[in-house]
Amino acid sequence: MKDEKDEKWRARLHEIIYESNTVAGKAFDVSLLVLIFTSIIIVMADSIEQWHNHYGNLFSTLEWSFTFMFTLEYLLRLVSIKKPWRYVFSFLGIIDLLAIIPSYLSIFYTGAQSLLVFRGLRLLRVFRIFKLTRFLSEMKFLGGAIKGSFTKISIFMLVVLTLVVILGSLMYLIENGQHGFSNIPDSIYWAIVTITTVGYGDISPTTPLGKFVASIIMLMGYGIIAVPTGILTNEIALQARKKEQKHEVCPGCGKEGHDIDAKYCKHCGTLL
Amino acid sequence: MKDEKDEKWRARLHEIIYESNTVAGKAFDVSLLVLIFTSIIIVMADSIEQWHNHYGNLFSTLEWSFTFMFTLEYLLRLVSIKKPWRYVFSFLGIIDLLAIIPSYLSIFYTGAQSLLVFRGLRLLRVFRIFKLTRFLSEMKFLGGAIKGSFTKISIFMLVVLTLVVILGSLMYLIENGQHGFSNIPDSIYWAIVTITTVGYGDISPTTPLGKFVASIIMLMGYGIIAVPTGILTNEIALQARKKEQKHEVCPGCGKEGHDIDAKYCKHCGTLL
Amino acid sequence: MKDEKDEKWRARLHEIIYESNTVAGKAFDVSLLVLIFTSIIIVMADSIEQWHNHYGNLFSTLEWSFTFMFTLEYLLRLVSIKKPWRYVFSFLGIIDLLAIIPSYLSIFYTGAQSLLVFRGLRLLRVFRIFKLTRFLSEMKFLGGAIKGSFTKISIFMLVVLTLVVILGSLMYLIENGQHGFSNIPDSIYWAIVTITTVGYGDISPTTPLGKFVASIIMLMGYGIIAVPTGILTNEIALQARKKEQKHEVCPGCGKEGHDIDAKYCKHCGTLL
Amino acid sequence: MKDEKDEKWRARLHEIIYESNTVAGKAFDVSLLVLIFTSIIIVMADSIEQWHNHYGNLFSTLEWSFTFMFTLEYLLRLVSIKKPWRYVFSFLGIIDLLAIIPSYLSIFYTGAQSLLVFRGLRLLRVFRIFKLTRFLSEMKFLGGAIKGSFTKISIFMLVVLTLVVILGSLMYLIENGQHGFSNIPDSIYWAIVTITTVGYGDISPTTPLGKFVASIIMLMGYGIIAVPTGILTNEIALQARKKEQKHEVCPGCGKEGHDIDAKYCKHCGTLL
Repeated sequence: MKDEKDEKWRARLHEIIYESNTVAGKAFDVSLLVLIFTSIIIVMADSIEQWHNHYGNLFSTLEWSFTFMFTLEYLLRLVSIKKPWRYVFSFLGIIDLLAIIPSYLSIFYTGAQSLLVFRGLRLLRVFRIFKLTRFLSEMKFLGGAIKGSFTKISIFMLVVLTLVVILGSLMYLIENGQHGFSNIPDSIYWAIVTITTVGYGDISPTTPLGKFVASIIMLMGYGIIAVPTGILTNEIALQARKKEQKHEVCPGCGKEGHDIDAKYCKHCGTLL
Repeated sequence: MKDEKDEKWRARLHEIIYESNTVAGKAFDVSLLVLIFTSIIIVMADSIEQWHNHYGNLFSTLEWSFTFMFTLEYLLRLVSIKKPWRYVFSFLGIIDLLAIIPSYLSIFYTGAQSLLVFRGLRLLRVFRIFKLTRFLSEMKFLGGAIKGSFTKISIFMLVVLTLVVILGSLMYLIENGQHGFSNIPDSIYWAIVTITTVGYGDISPTTPLGKFVASIIMLMGYGIIAVPTGILTNEIALQARKKEQKHEVCPGCGKEGHDIDAKYCKHCGTLL
Repeated sequence: MKDEKDEKWRARLHEIIYESNTVAGKAFDVSLLVLIFTSIIIVMADSIEQWHNHYGNLFSTLEWSFTFMFTLEYLLRLVSIKKPWRYVFSFLGIIDLLAIIPSYLSIFYTGAQSLLVFRGLRLLRVFRIFKLTRFLSEMKFLGGAIKGSFTKISIFMLVVLTLVVILGSLMYLIENGQHGFSNIPDSIYWAIVTITTVGYGDISPTTPLGKFVASIIMLMGYGIIAVPTGILTNEIALQARKKEQKHEVCPGCGKEGHDIDAKYCKHCGTLL
Repeated sequence: MKDEKDEKWRARLHEIIYESNTVAGKAFDVSLLVLIFTSIIIVMADSIEQWHNHYGNLFSTLEWSFTFMFTLEYLLRLVSIKKPWRYVFSFLGIIDLLAIIPSYLSIFYTGAQSLLVFRGLRLLRVFRIFKLTRFLSEMKFLGGAIKGSFTKISIFMLVVLTLVVILGSLMYLIENGQHGFSNIPDSIYWAIVTITTVGYGDISPTTPLGKFVASIIMLMGYGIIAVPTGILTNEIALQARKKEQKHEVCPGCGKEGHDIDAKYCKHCGTLL
């Protein structure tokens, strides 16, 4: 009898914490997001030296409160689920743990507190709430397009990586190890900065030949940036076309590819 | 009798000020645009210290003349419309007010004059004139495409924001709060500068690990920039296809939107 | 009789200079391109101070030789054409004149020689030679796509211009006229540098609020860059589709839209 | 008899070294890749001054081991192939030679060792292994799209080159040879840095007119970057459509490449 009650209580808790289709569940999700967001703002504010000197104690108190609340939440999650280990080793479970461990570590090691930035990953929970709205289908759509173009973009990235290794090494030879091109890794870093059109300017060629080669690299980068865009655009178009088309076969003429809102076959006029 | 005359006079004024399909209305619109444009040039010129020292008085006189003219225009707009409050709280109404208030405020507060830059927003009126030309349909087209891709781009922006928070925090830890990565907000600012490929170079990594992580962020930004382009390109294609589709009305059910090569109405099966 | 001979001689000269479908005409075009190219290299080399000091006289002699040859070419063009004024006031005619005037001007004004850079425009002649190859159709294709998307891109550019005026002015207020944001034109210049993702870093925000607004501008620029790409991509797709489709109507079923290589109607099997 | 045995042994060696569809062949390819990769890491590490001073001898020994192994591999490749000269003058053959020559050269000339960076090109062998997987078709696909858009992108690059020559020269005149615009080649380098939106900031305009012209160049670059993306996106779409098309062979004429919805062969009119 007690077990059954216990079971009911656990099911109710599970519904609130893990689901978001009840009023209480949604309220829990939203308030958790607000807590995570506030917690991150506090970590950020504490990183500003001036503010740390003035409000350090306040920030510290707040951080410990957040840590306490997140610990409580973590324990409730463990208690309310049937297979706790599955949650512990899930992606979100690890992030949830990473968000509370640094505070406790900071008791023993002073630097550990700065690891609190991993709380930023908890912001990813924001997507859980979107699950309920039309965002879900749009996210699936975008995710599908990115997944579909993954092989092509991987190949592209491999070519780009080989390219920056060679071009970076070449510039190291040309600039003769000077003007910021101190070694090959630094020169490869420069090549990546250049080919992605970021262009910090912390390292930039100074010899005429270096400038000439850099110009060619930049113009190449110009053409290269078109490749991932082209791949993704077409993948999105493909996904969109798939979504649009009804794959129902016309009973009259056997053709498919009708619009979603079509009642009759557009080829022979048969009722679909 | 007098009221009727008054009504006619108001209708005429309304036609000139709010409409632009009469000669007088178009002339009013164009001269208003010229005034706004000149006014902004004067505000800009006055912001250049050297010129302010030399021609400060001239600029001041001109600014007051523009303020007077814009105030007059604002009052005429109020008078000539039947529901003045609707105009006052409309988007353009608020901008029109913002364009004259700073001058009057500057009598009491010396700094207020610099708020005149909000006059820049009045340039948006330029689109009113385009309403008459083929620009209208093109603007509707572009607007439709941007509106259609809004949800997808919002999701994308949320992912980018979560990403820059995490990556910025990570770089703050790696660069150990030095070399411009003084605090987390500054590091997030750096991450945004990097991932959008702007790359000022006011903050740039100096440690080997920092450069390595920055390289990965840049290559990620390379792929990421493809997403909004892909989304918008396909939305524009969708809008274009919609526009292209035959607007022939089905004789059976009165619906339109059939494919160009459709023989039968896809809604009711009637031969088109 | 003499006139006729004169006429023949002029026609021959015209063929060589203006046409490029004869061997002599093509030879003339290619050697002219080589001359223009060499001339530009000399102007470039002369602009390097060190080289100017060493080889100044040589460069000067070469420049005068090129000027002499280009003058001769210009005169021959005038002589060999029936309506010389039409050439003089044509786009290429004005460029050809601009390429020789600075040298003569430099006799009277010392600085004029630097105007020789306008010779760079003569490089556009390179496209004349391509006229003979498959480049012509590709160029027409690209030109058509750019022309077709002109209205849309103009509207887009107007929105961007309004945006940078407002955002630049805003940053001038926020950064309070300091750190390079000395006046509104400079701040607008910064806004353009930022929104186009160029990001020199000669001006960059230093106040927290400035960095925050700059971050928003950058993320906006991220989305904005997608617009012209989206417009042009679809225009190119439209042009490609137009080119692909044969507009021949099938005599059997009256349908069009057949592939270029189609011999038989794909709808009813009739010989096209 | 001995010859036959010799032949068998050579065939076996050829299979291991040149093919990768046997277990031994794949093992050879993978271990070669690991060797190349490690070798490049060593060259990179040796270029860092601090590490060179500490571990210079170790790096030198390792480099000689790699050189020895690559020389052995090169000799085996020569021995196991029937037409050795064909390999020697092939693209990969030249790269393989370039990867070992610098080490031997460094005995006579001290600087030659730095040419070892050409080993980076050997990374291109990574694509050989992909030949076996689905990467092959994707690579062919991407390669086809790039090849198909080559003419269009060449024309575009020519226009961009002409543009940067003219704009660079113009900025040299405007900035009067100062603030980094010391000569025309440097100014052209600046124009390329700007129009590709890299924007190092090592050279940036300081005069008001210079900033104005630079702003126009940047906004142009904004539109221009859309062109290669548009071209490539459509080429990829074209390739995708080609791949999609029904490869059904016409029973009448044996040709394929028909549209998905085609009823009759478009070449000979036979019912498909």
